[in-house]
Amino acid sequence: MATVTRSVREVCEEAKAASHVLARVGREAKDACLKDLAERLEGRSAELLEANRADLEAGREEGLNDALIDRLTLTEERISEMAAGVREIAGLEDPVGELVESWTLENGLRVRKERVPIGVVAIVYEARPNVTIDAAALCLKSGNAAVLRGSSSAETSNAFLAGLVREALAAAELPEAATCLLEGRGHEQLRELATQEGLVDLIIPRGGEGLKRALKEAATVPVMYAAAGNCHVYVHEDADLSMAQRIAYNAKVQRPGVCNSAETLLVHRKVASALLPAAIQELADAGVELVGDERTRENAGSVRVGVATPEDWDTEYLGMKMAIAVVDSLAEAIEHINTHGTGHSEAIVTSSEEAAEGFTGGVDAAAVYVNASTRFTDGYEFGMGAEIGNSTQKLHARGPIGLRELTTTKYIVHGSGQIRE
Amino acid sequence: MATVTRSVREVCEEAKAASHVLARVGREAKDACLKDLAERLEGRSAELLEANRADLEAGREEGLNDALIDRLTLTEERISEMAAGVREIAGLEDPVGELVESWTLENGLRVRKERVPIGVVAIVYEARPNVTIDAAALCLKSGNAAVLRGSSSAETSNAFLAGLVREALAAAELPEAATCLLEGRGHEQLRELATQEGLVDLIIPRGGEGLKRALKEAATVPVMYAAAGNCHVYVHEDADLSMAQRIAYNAKVQRPGVCNSAETLLVHRKVASALLPAAIQELADAGVELVGDERTRENAGSVRVGVATPEDWDTEYLGMKMAIAVVDSLAEAIEHINTHGTGHSEAIVTSSEEAAEGFTGGVDAAAVYVNASTRFTDGYEFGMGAEIGNSTQKLHARGPIGLRELTTTKYIVHGSGQIRE
Repeated sequence: MATVTRSVREVCEEAKAASHVLARVGREAKDACLKDLAERLEGRSAELLEANRADLEAGREEGLNDALIDRLTLTEERISEMAAGVREIAGLEDPVGELVESWTLENGLRVRKERVPIGVVAIVYEARPNVTIDAAALCLKSGNAAVLRGSSSAETSNAFLAGLVREALAAAELPEAATCLLEGRGHEQLRELATQEGLVDLIIPRGGEGLKRALKEAATVPVMYAAAGNCHVYVHEDADLSMAQRIAYNAKVQRPGVCNSAETLLVHRKVASALLPAAIQELADAGVELVGDERTRENAGSVRVGVATPEDWDTEYLGMKMAIAVVDSLAEAIEHINTHGTGHSEAIVTSSEEAAEGFTGGVDAAAVYVNASTRFTDGYEFGMGAEIGNSTQKLHARGPIGLRELTTTKYIVHGSGQIRE
Repeated sequence: MATVTRSVREVCEEAKAASHVLARVGREAKDACLKDLAERLEGRSAELLEANRADLEAGREEGLNDALIDRLTLTEERISEMAAGVREIAGLEDPVGELVESWTLENGLRVRKERVPIGVVAIVYEARPNVTIDAAALCLKSGNAAVLRGSSSAETSNAFLAGLVREALAAAELPEAATCLLEGRGHEQLRELATQEGLVDLIIPRGGEGLKRALKEAATVPVMYAAAGNCHVYVHEDADLSMAQRIAYNAKVQRPGVCNSAETLLVHRKVASALLPAAIQELADAGVELVGDERTRENAGSVRVGVATPEDWDTEYLGMKMAIAVVDSLAEAIEHINTHGTGHSEAIVTSSEEAAEGFTGGVDAAAVYVNASTRFTDGYEFGMGAEIGNSTQKLHARGPIGLRELTTTKYIVHGSGQIRE
């Protein structure tokens, strides 16, 4: 018996048709569907865990490392978190139909600029099965059809999860093709997905640099890149040093594996000897490996601080390692950040408004902080609700990609017979 | 003696450095520079016309056709128009620093979302030398450094114009590299420009489909495509028929060579016999070549209306030709438009609010009109001032690309020592 497999194009065509229906669906029906999905996730958790066990067994046989197995693993607790996330999305404002601006032209034409769904959003991700639910829920709420391309290592889990979403869609009398799942099948499939012009309106990769690079090269449809974050904390000469130490520590240690954690600490030379010995000691005590320039190493006290290589300034460690440099001025700090940073999140600690303005104006990044940790760049922390990533590119969305960033706009113009003279 | 030619990369590096300075320049300095540029254009028009004559002579020798020669030609009048355009841009609000949103988080962090320049914007265009000035002025006003890649056929004119801009920049003590000119030198150069990641933040092509296609395939930096427009006027069954005829005529005839003119007229079957004979006669009298479906041809009176082929529904004629179809319903009109349109500008003529809402909600386009000509989709007409094109893509900008669309945003977050718990 032949297996009937739909092509990427066919899947995208179904998603496109569904997107036209979904764009007109009101908030109530979408929220009801999301709440129902949350129920299904919890009510069917035993089956879901069983599906997940099949992926885990296959993964262990294939020799996936512990970190990948951990990402792949679902538990009752993780399922509850997924359901809670879906309920939270249901509680957010619907961005569709939001009025961005309106005005009347001299000729009497009334112009409205409204938010509308983008259409078909493809999301390409790695092993975490929870992204299937996050992405499906965010797309549904923002009125977009989702084409999800998960990892083949999460095949069984993802198929079950996408099935639950489609059950909830069907129960709500919404088009099931609002959520379509492609199991990841190599680069040729990715290239096919990334060239569906006219069908796929946007691709968002959630994964490593290799995936982004592959997409950048192959894509003819627009791609929105979630971020790498080489973030800095700069301590100005007039900083409250205990605040500075607290912020530097938090930005590095609170959760070192995420993109908004800091990788490099920059310290004005005038406060290097007052700040660094204690700050370095505290970081080292927490288990942070440190590297620094010469002036930093002179202020390391009894802690061993390695020699920072040129590569260190460009590295997103995503772990318990930090580079430290002493700078002569605010301008040098800004120059260092604009040269080595990735435009994600950058912080200054200062008591001067002038220095703060110089920093926030001069640093080219999605988010710049005065006297706060870089760790706040996040859709939840910013009060935007859920996010699907954090953009460091400058077009369309810069910073957290939330529901509103998953919309585009439409000009709606009402007249009474106006023609162009 | 060797000619020193800077590489594309070197030019982009200079532009990047200039962009960092330009991002901090206030409105007054930018506007003064623009007004000075307008003076220089008018004051040096004799030299400019001489430079232009060199291009025209070379173009005639190379056998450029009349349309290309016309695009290439500068006159005193066209120079005055350029200067007026630059003065108009000087009079527009500065989008840089505009507050998009601000709010305070529960932890006391104050979040501001402000408009900032994108950085380095590359504009790739064909023979018209006036684009050199339009693009330079729009980029300067929006705080972006411009890398302009003109056509080699306008080499002498563009070099003179870019020289004038750089003189005005220097006189205003702004970085001259805020406007950099690359003379067009084949596809390899275009590919090089389109892959300057980290230096070029955005490329905007202003030219034909071949140029867009080449960029789409080569680019790794973001590209914003100006539009092709296969636009429609749909006349609903309850339309004021004299208004419908006036709008259809205006949308086709007033300026047929532009992207927001209409290519296809759709007419509800219930008003086909009342509208079409007169509308067709009027269009034919104006010299419009007509093709239509069977029901249209039955209502053509004595005018010869050709048989519309399937290709006609997909064609942007950009000239005095129009396709006409009779449809059975609003839904069929929407379906036709979403299938064949390019998402630019679409109009309905109706006296019913319900039909208007159905149309504006159901049609997927940058601008949808009720009882008005499609010809209003334009930065000037919308009151946004100058535009560098009209986007039919959904990311970042949809519709006219004005000054605001040449900016991105930055989150500026002020705290008092907040750390993430």
